[in-house]
Amino acid sequence: MKKSISILLALALLFSCMLFSLAEDTLSPKYVFMFIGDGMGSPQISATEYYLGTMENPDATMPTAGKLSFTDFENIGIMTTYDATSFCPDSASTATSMASGEKTISGVLNYNVDKTESFKLITEYAKEAGKKIGVVSSVSVDHATPAAYYAKATSRNLNYEIALQAVTGTTLDFLGGGSFLKPNGTGDQENIIAIAEKNGFVLANTNEAILSLNSESGRTVANVPDTADSSSMQYEIDRVAKEAAGEESISLAKMTQAAINTLVNEEGFFLMVEGGKIDWSCHANDATTSIYETLAFSDAVQVAIDFAQQHPDETLIIVTGDHETGGLTIGFATTAYNTHLDYLSNQTMSYVAFNAVIKSLRSEKATFESALSHIEEAFGLTTTSDQALTLTAAELESLKSAFELSMTEADARVLGDKEALLYGGYEPLSMAVCHILNNKAGIAYTSYSHTGLQIPVYAQGIGAEKFNGSYDNTDIFTKTMDIMGLSK
Amino acid sequence: MKKSISILLALALLFSCMLFSLAEDTLSPKYVFMFIGDGMGSPQISATEYYLGTMENPDATMPTAGKLSFTDFENIGIMTTYDATSFCPDSASTATSMASGEKTISGVLNYNVDKTESFKLITEYAKEAGKKIGVVSSVSVDHATPAAYYAKATSRNLNYEIALQAVTGTTLDFLGGGSFLKPNGTGDQENIIAIAEKNGFVLANTNEAILSLNSESGRTVANVPDTADSSSMQYEIDRVAKEAAGEESISLAKMTQAAINTLVNEEGFFLMVEGGKIDWSCHANDATTSIYETLAFSDAVQVAIDFAQQHPDETLIIVTGDHETGGLTIGFATTAYNTHLDYLSNQTMSYVAFNAVIKSLRSEKATFESALSHIEEAFGLTTTSDQALTLTAAELESLKSAFELSMTEADARVLGDKEALLYGGYEPLSMAVCHILNNKAGIAYTSYSHTGLQIPVYAQGIGAEKFNGSYDNTDIFTKTMDIMGLSK
Repeated sequence: MKKSISILLALALLFSCMLFSLAEDTLSPKYVFMFIGDGMGSPQISATEYYLGTMENPDATMPTAGKLSFTDFENIGIMTTYDATSFCPDSASTATSMASGEKTISGVLNYNVDKTESFKLITEYAKEAGKKIGVVSSVSVDHATPAAYYAKATSRNLNYEIALQAVTGTTLDFLGGGSFLKPNGTGDQENIIAIAEKNGFVLANTNEAILSLNSESGRTVANVPDTADSSSMQYEIDRVAKEAAGEESISLAKMTQAAINTLVNEEGFFLMVEGGKIDWSCHANDATTSIYETLAFSDAVQVAIDFAQQHPDETLIIVTGDHETGGLTIGFATTAYNTHLDYLSNQTMSYVAFNAVIKSLRSEKATFESALSHIEEAFGLTTTSDQALTLTAAELESLKSAFELSMTEADARVLGDKEALLYGGYEPLSMAVCHILNNKAGIAYTSYSHTGLQIPVYAQGIGAEKFNGSYDNTDIFTKTMDIMGLSK
Repeated sequence: MKKSISILLALALLFSCMLFSLAEDTLSPKYVFMFIGDGMGSPQISATEYYLGTMENPDATMPTAGKLSFTDFENIGIMTTYDATSFCPDSASTATSMASGEKTISGVLNYNVDKTESFKLITEYAKEAGKKIGVVSSVSVDHATPAAYYAKATSRNLNYEIALQAVTGTTLDFLGGGSFLKPNGTGDQENIIAIAEKNGFVLANTNEAILSLNSESGRTVANVPDTADSSSMQYEIDRVAKEAAGEESISLAKMTQAAINTLVNEEGFFLMVEGGKIDWSCHANDATTSIYETLAFSDAVQVAIDFAQQHPDETLIIVTGDHETGGLTIGFATTAYNTHLDYLSNQTMSYVAFNAVIKSLRSEKATFESALSHIEEAFGLTTTSDQALTLTAAELESLKSAFELSMTEADARVLGDKEALLYGGYEPLSMAVCHILNNKAGIAYTSYSHTGLQIPVYAQGIGAEKFNGSYDNTDIFTKTMDIMGLSK
């Protein structure tokens, strides 16, 4: 090879490297999706994939895993989630870390540890850069995780103040999910929805209105009409049952689609979507319900994946959890190496729906036998002998104790350490039933609170490779800012 | 720019791309380290990093994480670990998946599900490619995980047959760790060590001999002289205590260094190192001991990291677990969001060492008070009031029940479902003590067996980027083969 050609080749290589690195530095995603499965760690993901595989392959002779929509994303990381209070952190502080890149104490939203200074949010930077901002949650829209993406509050419990920030001088273009927890504040404060409408927000609070939202709709508050406990959307297991009975009920996936339909524009958007009831069901040690919630969350991510396929080279999707909840494990002391995840499919309603059944039983002073027939109907646990879910004498005894407590009015119950361990402050009979079904299926929990497990991060699209590796939850902010070309 | 130059530039770009992809395709690591933390999932890693951070920062005002040697590796993946029997798999089948790329049933080493055909191991392919082969384990060298890297057996319990394969017609150049479980087979079979020596192996069975191994030593069997339970190396917590008392005791890190010293050669090596007692201590729900084991494992990885720094562009290090053991969680029902990981530092010996204390107590027909004083000495749990580790009335009661069972000779104990749940077949008093200390520290377990949790993979060095993403444990084989340029 002649010398001159060699030099040219070298120059060309240098030039192409420069071009390549320039392209890498400047290519930033127009559409950014941040999905947070509240309480979703590897245990929730593993349990759901294995349940899915089990149910989809009833004739399989060996264990088969199913796949959630996001676990095949090309880039995976693992992050630490502890906050300034504990290794077992809170949703407010962990969402703060991801939204603003700073650690704070449990219960605080985007304020420092001393509660004297507030942090600037990624949604504020993104808004300044011209993007539309959306926040979606399956729980109330002013709950800790959604709130962290639009509000600053020294306590997550300041729901009216948080809601005010959602609709006044806000970054938000779309806020969807359940409704507001305290729309009237102390009762005599101006209604949040009224303020929102005064400030130019459209209220979509029917299924039809939500499903017909589009890019001409303008700034939108979307509240599902059929809210459940604490102003949240229905538990997926109950929502599916409603739909099976012919009633429409908006899923997290449909709400995510509504957000996209509303937000899509030439400057792009930043959309945070929370699967908030994975956490709630794991707090309550209701494994089946948490699996349904994880599936609903996965379906919502699929909506973003479908959108990304329409917008290749313009989209980044990040999927993670804020912390693990409940200390869920696939495996239990007495079932050892055996699992029977298919047993969970006998459960037909969430623990919250079953709490309502228990309430009726209490008001009608039902017998234990009557309760057992309701338990069989809702969870498959039976006194008929030689069935897969036949209750043992010890299980019947534990159900009896829980039944007696549950038949006492809540304020008349005597609850000690033993009951704290057995029921964690929940309706005793619901907990006893969930624990028995879980354990028979080979599932167990250690806690009714959040745990300190490090959490996987799945990322796909523009800049996603930055999410490979091990880091802290504050780096979710830093990396996303970096990829979006934003700086503090 | 002139047209001719443009064409040249384009050609140069094409040429450099070809060169680059050629380089990427052909660059394979000379030295491959496969580290397996038996029973080590994210919970064990999280707990150890948080314990480390807590102990290293006694004055910190907020939770601080420590770092294991490998968690900052650039590439992270998450793998499924189920085997052909269960979502809660076995060490034999999971090691088979990683060593040969095939799923099999629990308890089987490198044979198919029908036990009719054996699989070819990555160590066989690597040997054929000229590499030296080493296997190190902190448990007996014929235990399931090490065995999977040199033997094929229809049952992991065929220890003599497995050991025979280690020293006869073997791929092994180095086998180090504990000793053989049944060196004389049924008792009258030829001694394994004698066979090894006949076949040209050097036996290093003193600390001096092990520490002086080098590249001239030849094929080596290295057995630590101070084996502990089931022919394993000492539990790290007990080994550290021995060294503090002035007795030398080989660590897993030193055994790994001995392996490297013996194996290093121009053709390179494949070295599998197992931290086998993370699993054993988690089976026994002994959190403190498992944290020490994880630290010992991390130290062993550090030896490889140091080696890689001496051999840049020639080394690949993979670190993973085979499955999670025990359903460990940071967080417990009654401690909720509080953790006190520093409490674990009061524990001064492994559950196995404490079993020996219990044995003495039994033979001397000790009183409960005497047992309590031993418990205080070994675990810090105390009857002195108002201390951090003061035993509650309920805890004392559970210790008393366990003490009474432990004072009965094993074959005279009456053990029902309740005891199976409380003690899982272990020495009752050791389990009661471990559970109480764990729970006070904010740690809990759900099982005495393996669980179904998906497991993180950490990789660094040549080809390590292939370990980013989500995959099955059989892909560990496929990816490593691919990176090494080997094909089936």
